[in-house]
Amino acid sequence: MATDAYYFDDLRVGMRFESGSHTITEAEIMAFAAAFDPQPFHLDDERARDSIFSGLAASGWHTAAITMRLMVDLGIPAGGLIGTGCEVAWPRPTRPGDTLRVVSEVLELMPSRSRNDRGVAVIRSETRNQNDEIVQLLTAKMMAFKRPPS
Amino acid sequence: MATDAYYFDDLRVGMRFESGSHTITEAEIMAFAAAFDPQPFHLDDERARDSIFSGLAASGWHTAAITMRLMVDLGIPAGGLIGTGCEVAWPRPTRPGDTLRVVSEVLELMPSRSRNDRGVAVIRSETRNQNDEIVQLLTAKMMAFKRPPS
Repeated sequence: MATDAYYFDDLRVGMRFESGSHTITEAEIMAFAAAFDPQPFHLDDERARDSIFSGLAASGWHTAAITMRLMVDLGIPAGGLIGTGCEVAWPRPTRPGDTLRVVSEVLELMPSRSRNDRGVAVIRSETRNQNDEIVQLLTAKMMAFKRPPS
Repeated sequence: MATDAYYFDDLRVGMRFESGSHTITEAEIMAFAAAFDPQPFHLDDERARDSIFSGLAASGWHTAAITMRLMVDLGIPAGGLIGTGCEVAWPRPTRPGDTLRVVSEVLELMPSRSRNDRGVAVIRSETRNQNDEIVQLLTAKMMAFKRPPS
């Protein structure tokens, strides 16, 4: 898929996209946590060792935010990459030094019944680390505009 | 609910929690977007006006992250406020100057079948703005430890 804006019409069920990657640092994990999720296992290496995570782990919302960034960098559809809702699961933690990338697949395409100019694409995105382990599973309903008549 | 650590045993279906509030600034919206969701309607007031949002709007992941912060500030259960998965919807955008707060309710309590020391609490959290409009609906499965035998 090119990085030029694309439309609902350009999507097909089964299409796959693979993002670039981002290596997350301990400093990034702690800075995000200090702002949005200040719990010991996201902030403090030592206290994280005694937690359920057995070591420093990124906030799930940090993994979600990095996933969004990797998807945006892959290319924004016409009108924007806009989710109306989603399901998220975090089967394992993101660790300092992990290199994340996103593999997405179009699951379903639903033209809008009420609005002729758009549709909804259901996209499943796996966020994987350098060992190909899934750290986040995201199934999102994305709004997508149809190509305007020329 | 006190801000002391609490356990699975302390939760009851129907319990409600209301968080403090956070007023989001335009600078915060743009900084989060620059890092994690660099799309024009999150970054640039003028280009946002011509977008589907008709004005600057926070990334949905920013609303989610602020929601998490407000929930953590309300009090962390023993072992941590740990979601294993969730559903999120953003019925309307978060705008610069919006004052957000979170109203949560315990929907379901499921003791773990395989592990005696914990359970899962299904928590529904509405993130509301100053006009009491819902900007995010989150239904999350939260891990919660049982009180250890004394």
